This record gives sequence, structure tokens and C-alpha cells, in this order.
Amino acid sequence: MSDPSAPLTRWWGWGDPDKLPEVPPSGLALLRELVGEAEPDSRVALEQVGLPEPRALPSSLIDAAGQHAVLAGREHRIRRAVGQSYPDLVRLRSGRLEDAPDAVVLPGTSSEVARVLEVCTAEGIAVVPFGGGTSVVGGVQPVRGAHERVIALDLHRLRSVEVDERSLVARLGPGLRGPEAEAALAERGLTLGHFPQSYEYATVGGFAATRSAGQASSGYGRFDEVVTSVRLTAPTGELSTLDVPHTAAGPSLREVVVGSEGVLGVITEVGLRVRPAPSERRYEAWVAPDFGTGAEIVRALAHADALPDVIRVSDEAETAASLGLAGIEGARRRALDAYLRLRRRSGGAMVITGWEGTTDAVARRRAVSARLIKAGGGVSLGRGPGEAWLRGRYEGPYLREALLDLGYLVETLETAHTWSHLEAHYRAVGSAIERALRGGGEGALVLCHLSHAYRDGASLYFTFISPRRPGGELEQWREVKTAACEAIVAQGGTITHHHAIGRDHVPYMRSEVGELGLEALAALKERLDPAQVMNPGKLIP
Amino acid sequence: MSDPSAPLTRWWGWGDPDKLPEVPPSGLALLRELVGEAEPDSRVALEQVGLPEPRALPSSLIDAAGQHAVLAGREHRIRRAVGQSYPDLVRLRSGRLEDAPDAVVLPGTSSEVARVLEVCTAEGIAVVPFGGGTSVVGGVQPVRGAHERVIALDLHRLRSVEVDERSLVARLGPGLRGPEAEAALAERGLTLGHFPQSYEYATVGGFAATRSAGQASSGYGRFDEVVTSVRLTAPTGELSTLDVPHTAAGPSLREVVVGSEGVLGVITEVGLRVRPAPSERRYEAWVAPDFGTGAEIVRALAHADALPDVIRVSDEAETAASLGLAGIEGARRRALDAYLRLRRRSGGAMVITGWEGTTDAVARRRAVSARLIKAGGGVSLGRGPGEAWLRGRYEGPYLREALLDLGYLVETLETAHTWSHLEAHYRAVGSAIERALRGGGEGALVLCHLSHAYRDGASLYFTFISPRRPGGELEQWREVKTAACEAIVAQGGTITHHHAIGRDHVPYMRSEVGELGLEALAALKERLDPAQVMNPGKLIP
Repeated sequence: MSDPSAPLTRWWGWGDPDKLPEVPPSGLALLRELVGEAEPDSRVALEQVGLPEPRALPSSLIDAAGQHAVLAGREHRIRRAVGQSYPDLVRLRSGRLEDAPDAVVLPGTSSEVARVLEVCTAEGIAVVPFGGGTSVVGGVQPVRGAHERVIALDLHRLRSVEVDERSLVARLGPGLRGPEAEAALAERGLTLGHFPQSYEYATVGGFAATRSAGQASSGYGRFDEVVTSVRLTAPTGELSTLDVPHTAAGPSLREVVVGSEGVLGVITEVGLRVRPAPSERRYEAWVAPDFGTGAEIVRALAHADALPDVIRVSDEAETAASLGLAGIEGARRRALDAYLRLRRRSGGAMVITGWEGTTDAVARRRAVSARLIKAGGGVSLGRGPGEAWLRGRYEGPYLREALLDLGYLVETLETAHTWSHLEAHYRAVGSAIERALRGGGEGALVLCHLSHAYRDGASLYFTFISPRRPGGELEQWREVKTAACEAIVAQGGTITHHHAIGRDHVPYMRSEVGELGLEALAALKERLDPAQVMNPGKLIP
Repeated sequence: MSDPSAPLTRWWGWGDPDKLPEVPPSGLALLRELVGEAEPDSRVALEQVGLPEPRALPSSLIDAAGQHAVLAGREHRIRRAVGQSYPDLVRLRSGRLEDAPDAVVLPGTSSEVARVLEVCTAEGIAVVPFGGGTSVVGGVQPVRGAHERVIALDLHRLRSVEVDERSLVARLGPGLRGPEAEAALAERGLTLGHFPQSYEYATVGGFAATRSAGQASSGYGRFDEVVTSVRLTAPTGELSTLDVPHTAAGPSLREVVVGSEGVLGVITEVGLRVRPAPSERRYEAWVAPDFGTGAEIVRALAHADALPDVIRVSDEAETAASLGLAGIEGARRRALDAYLRLRRRSGGAMVITGWEGTTDAVARRRAVSARLIKAGGGVSLGRGPGEAWLRGRYEGPYLREALLDLGYLVETLETAHTWSHLEAHYRAVGSAIERALRGGGEGALVLCHLSHAYRDGASLYFTFISPRRPGGELEQWREVKTAACEAIVAQGGTITHHHAIGRDHVPYMRSEVGELGLEALAALKERLDPAQVMNPGKLIP
């Protein structure tokens, strides 16, 4: 069997290998001015990547999945060895993989998944479910736990599509990537509306297992909000929830499976609420006097039930950097500056809004939102920059690749808090990141935007850039990650709004759910996965 | 200590003892015509109620809660012995209580709850959490399980109120009744918007523990949808979730606590998203040609994101009965009939719609919905009957008391399914109820309405009336309840949309979550309540 996911991405990082990322010269000059020079980073060749010798796997595993469904080649193993966090990319680029799966297993049906889990349970083989490999929190790291062997369970062959058009429910296989799911729905005039930055490669199963949130979450809902039923194939059996719009039958096992990050079993089918594809998409940009005022505008929109489908507010640093790094220069930049001067604005906080739906509904909803945005002090920049954002919304990871080549550390992390705590949270986490980066002597650029808004609060998404510490990249990352996480926890915010726990956030789960919460999760784990083969080292400390 | 809940309700059934229910003569005549005569039922006096002798409780229990917080009087015990299901009311009225709590314990703080649970765990005393006692599925039945003694843990003294007005989040104690919670919020210009039929007596803790759904759930959200955080005091400790708008940190333990019906511990605080109190409420009624067409109107509203806050469609039988039983006669009835004839309608299915919010928003939203209702074949009956519904929405249980006195069995049950299955589900469940009632030789009136609508489906709420079988009331009820539940399960619908599992639905939990789902729930139970003292016999088979 050929490897269905291999050709799609570069092995050493994000995305389409034919798409060459580039930082505009003016953007690079700005970056150097802001954070200093970095020592450019070279990548090893695929052949030079060092990884442990694979351990032999039992023939029963091949019997369970079929001979052609077990791949043991070097590249297959390398491609399932990491996700897309900064440490993951550092390991790949330097060719020093601490670990890799002993083989990649690609089951074709949920029964094959069940048989593979049975063998792994009997033989003591760790199983790491693998979708798009886009985790940025170490969620697919091939940790062996108490076992000597580990496989990556690649779910790409589970790609069933079944649509109930009357109820607007789609039952999808976990292996479908974002664009594949959308294409299957588009044939029926429908959409899922789930567009996270990982959309191009991440899968339906991964979206469910990690509680992914798309950029249009205020309109279409987060992924966990549109899941109506799940099927979990666990080592001890199968857990399915009913295909009904709602039930009051006890604790929600659907909400136990969603977010379970592969530690309880494998999500082998997801029932999802879908929508008619929008006939209109209207995106536009605004500028608010400052980030705090922009946040207040979002709070007012949320409290008036008038949130656009997409709403984002960049802080002053992100606003300036995104204009500068994107190389909006020359005539376009002069025109923008002139416009802002005319409106007595300079700098400020960029707000992106997007509405999707029927022409009528978009017009009606936009009118209500626009009134509130203006009342809150927002000034329209028109559709141009809004549509530019829409076109460029999957470009972040490509730009990051380019910055890594140039020698910069680029990482993101996110959190959420209630409106009452949001501003203090923003300052505390941002300062912690900046202090940690500058404490190592490097310059630092810390950017933030507010997104995923609710009546009671919102998420904050931080991006930070600093010259890497050559040879000490992982240590440098660990320092800043730890500082940020500790600040988040100290503020009572959540350690993750939509990146999930993976391996990197495990130390903070106790702050999240407390001792008894951890015990409850452990009890579920013990019952569903008594041999503890499922995704060791993730989620549960 | 006086009994804080005793004076509010009649001991032998629902509601305000000063409010005398009455069936209008014309309504009674209609009922007799439809289902036949019934043998009027008398009630025993409070003194005549038979209940088991209380077992002695250890002094450590009194130490834990305080001497005045343990009530052992007859009336206290009788009042916590049942809920409000038909069998409960039959037992009360006949004075034959199979069981009653040995005492009622009223803790004043969550620490006292913890100490009481500690004593009960050590001593092997079953604990039945008790809020408003409005369960219609046996949720507060004093089942002893493996233990000899049982207490009702009445939570009325846990009535804290803490409001974050900036984030629109209220942290409420579980003992607050619906109107008490609303009054506390109204002082701050806010509302929870949770108005189930049990609103007058049910409590915040009960709403959370049973996943209650208010009549305006399409607008304000079901109770479980507005819960943002919970505190569970369990026999093995306390489980709290963060007060943040959302987290992707693993399985949702909030969604494990919500709906746990007292079997995992006691919900001692609930964080809730609240809203500004509406400045306008607009209710109106419509008539659709038939129930199927009415359901299609609701589906169209849901798919267009244009659901009113309240939306209900009565089937033809319920429409006729509610007009007739409510005694809409004389001039008002003739005017209505004339109006319907003018619009070439007679009979049909009544649709109730309600919008709440700012004047602007109500007008805007109503315009969109009204267009779709008319396009779907609905004809307006104006605001009069809509407002009459609003005024009378808590009257059902009083009317039921009157019908019980007249000798009729009156019971309700509910389910939900996707739009694709809804019509078949409606027919199957309705027929099963009717067959079961008529099979016993009695006449039967089976009414249904659709409510709680979603993009993917809706709930169905059945009310059925039949002459009771004197002396065989419980057997008669069991036959029809079993027939209905089996029909629900055979159709793949949920056994409950918002009444919960309690004791009556326990046999159907396996159909709901499967064998492994039951094991997952049992694992949680064992970890949080290893002595199995919490609400035995409920939820988990």
C-alpha cells in the first residue's frame, strides 16, 4: 500500500512542498529592527535524520490490519514521529528524533481498528492515533509509556461519508482531512464551516479528539459544538452515542469522547451538524483605538447576540507586525496610513469581521454588528483588508517555516478567560512570554489576538518571535513555554482553548481539573484501556 | 430549624395549597366524551399516610450537619419520599408509601455537605439529594441500595448568589428555586431565562443534575448549555471546573457532573451564563394545517437560524384538547372558529412562538421568523392566544391534580429524534401509548407537542389521559410506560430529552449508551462514590 498522506506535505515541516515560503524584504528588515539578527538555520537531508532502530512487531499485528497496511519504512516512521510544535520542528530540522513509531499501521475499517487494539493490548504495544499530524502540543509524540514498542495508527483510510440532508447531519470517518470533508459536503450544497489554521491537513478525527475551534467558531460553532454523536473504538469495546439532537440521559459520554486525545480509544466515526453552504461571504476590517477598546467591542457584540461568524482583534503589536511583516508597503501602505490619519487614527488594533450565509442574512446581521462596532469606536477599513485576511488565513505556518530558516524561534499558544479577567490575563501572559524571551538575552516580539468570543469571555492567541538560541533551541522554548503556562494558571485561565493538552500541557492538568478530576479521568482510562496502551503520556499525568 | 420547603406546597401533590385547581365544566364534558367516565379518587389525610418506621441514625450525622439540621418528623419524611410522577402521586394520595427517608438533613454549606457524605460513606447510609422534589421519573425515590438507612439531603440552605456582571456569569447555590434565582438576578437587571414547567419549585441544583430544558430553550439555551462551571462535592472529595468560557483540556468533566442526577455526588455550586432581562416579550399563536406541516415550519426556522426563543407545535389532538379542556367556549371560541373558517382552516395544529429581548431585536427576529412561518402555511392567530399560553404555562400540574381527583390517570413523557425520524417516531410512540391504554379496556387521549427544536431534530412531548384502573393504578401506569419506552428505544430515539433517567428510565440506559458506556459510568461512580451511597438505584443500572 502506498502511503496516502506522504505526498501531501514536506517531511521536515508544514505544508505543500511546492509552495516556497518567503518573508518580504521589508518585513525581514522590520523584524531585524524589532528583535535583532538571528543565525540562519539549515536543515539536514531526509537521509541524515537519526532515529532509533525499529523494534520487531508481532505477526498478529499484520494479521489484524493486513500485510499492506503495516508500513515500516524510514520515511513513514519519520513522518509520524512528530507534530508541528516548535520543538517538533527543531527535532526534525536538526535530524535528531528522540523517538519514532516502530511502524505505521493503516486500518481500513473500524473492525480492523478494534483488532489492532486487541493485539496491542495483548502484546503491550503503545498506540498513537495519527490524523493530520498537526498537533502543536506534542499530541502525536510516539511515547512508549510502560511498553517497549509503539505504533502510529494512521487513520487516513477511514473516510466514510454519510449525509442525512433532511436533518443536516453528516457522519464522517475520522481520516478525512478538512478539505476532503468540505468537498464531500459541497457536492450536496453543504458545509461544516470548520476552518482552523490547520484546516488543510488536519482530520475530522483530530478535530474531535482535540476540541478544535475554527476561525469562524462564533458562527458555525466550535468543532465540539457541532458533534452530535461519536463512535469510539476502545481496547475494551465500542462506545457509541445515539444519533439524536440531544439527550438528558445522564453525564454526556459524547463530551467524554470528544477531547479524549486518543487516550481512551480511537474515534472511528463522528456525527456532525452541517449547514447549507453560504451563498455570500462578507469579510472586512476595522480599526479600534486600542486592544482594550477592541475587546470591549467584541464583548458588546457578544452580549447583543450580534457576533459575526469570524471576529478577531489584534493587539497593537500584532496589528503593526501583520501590516509590516506582510509587506504592505508602498502605495497601499501610504493609502492606508492616509486613511487612518483622516479618521484621526494611527496604529490601533485591527479588527477582522466575517459574515457568511444567505445574502439577506449577511446584510441583516452585518448591519446590526456594524452599528455596535462603530458605537464602540471602530472605524471601517473596508472589505479589502478583510478579504486579504481571508485569502491569507492558512499562510501562517508557511511564513513560520520561512522564519525558522532565517533562524527565528516562532511559536504560538493560547488560552481563554472571562471578560472580567481578560485584560489582566492578556498582560500577565504577554509579559511572562516577553520576560522569559528577553531574560535569555534575545530580543522578543510578542503578538496577541482575541478570537473565539463568547458571552462570558474570549480566547487569547499569542504568537512570539525571537532569535533562536543556536544549539539551545529546546531549552529556550521550554523556558518561555513554562513561563507562559505558569502565568496562565496563576490567573485562573485555561491552559488551552483549542490546542488541547497533548504532552506539553500535561503538567497543568491538575490546575485545570483538580486532583479528583484527574482521578475521574484515570478511572475512565482504566476501564476503557486497562493495558494503558492508548497514546501514553498525553492528557492524563 | 423550621422546614424551609414545607409551607410552599401541598404535601399530597403539586403546588400552592391555596390554589384550587378546577376543570371547566365544558372541558370535563369533552373529556368524558373522549375517554369515558372515571371513578373519582379520594385522598387520605396526612395522618393516615403509612410509612416505614425510621431507622436510627448515628450521632456523627448530627455532628456533621448540626442538630437543628436533621429533621425526623413524619411530615418532613413524607414530603421527601416522592417526586411528581403519576406513581408518586398515586402512592401519596393512597397513603401507601413503600419507603421514606429515615431523616431529612439540611446542610448549610458545602463543607457540611462534605462532612455528611463522609459520615454516610463510613456508616453505609444512602443519600438522596433533594431540591424541589419535582422529578417525574423517580429521581428522588428514597432507595436504600445495599444500605439499611437512607437520608434525604435537602439542599435548600445552599443559596449563595455571586454575579460577575461584566462577564454575565452568576454562581448560584443549588438550593435556589427558579423564582428565587430569577429574583436575585432581576435585582441586577439580569435573567437566566430558564422556565420549565417545574420552574416554580424546582431548584438550580436539580436543573443541573437532570439537564433541565426550559420552555424558551431555543433562545436562552437549555440549562446544560448555560452551565459554565460546576462544583461537585463527592464522597471522595471535591471536583471543580474552571470558571472560563471554554476549555479544550480533555473530556468535559463539567458535562460529566451535569446530568449526574446525584449518583456521583452533590452539586454544591453552579456557574451560569445569564443575560440582560428582556425589555420586550412578544408571544403569539399560529395555526398550521396539520402537525406534519407545523414540524416542517420548525425545521425551516431552525435551518434558517430563525428559531423564536419559544417554539411549540401541538398535534391536532392536543390543539383540540387544549382549546376544549381550557374551556375556551362561547363568544371567544366562536370568534376563533369564524376566523379559522375565513382563513379556510379548521382544526389544524397550534403553533406557539415567543421572542424576548430588546424591542429592536424582537421586531427584527420576529419579522424573519414570521415570513418563514407564513411561507410554510402557518396562519397567525395573533398575540391573544400566545399571551394566554404564556400566562398559563405553569398551570399544567394544577390541572393534573384536578383530573387526578376526578379519577383520571394523567402522565407525560418525552423523547427526541432527528428530523428524518421524527414523524415515524411520533406515530410509533403515540400508537404504543394509545394501544397500551386501550388494551386495558380504558378510553385514551394521547396528546403531543413538538418543542425544543434544533437544526438536526426536535423533542416530542406526550401527555396522555385515561380513566384510572381503581386499585390497579400502578400496574396500568407500568403497562403504558413500558410500551412507550420500548417504542422509543425501537425507533432509536432517546429515552429522555429533559426529564432525565431517575429510576423509571434505568432499564433503558443500555440502549442509550451501550454496555461500554455503562461501564464508563460505573467506573466514574466507583471512583467518586466507592461506598455507593449516592442516590442508589438511579441512572446507572
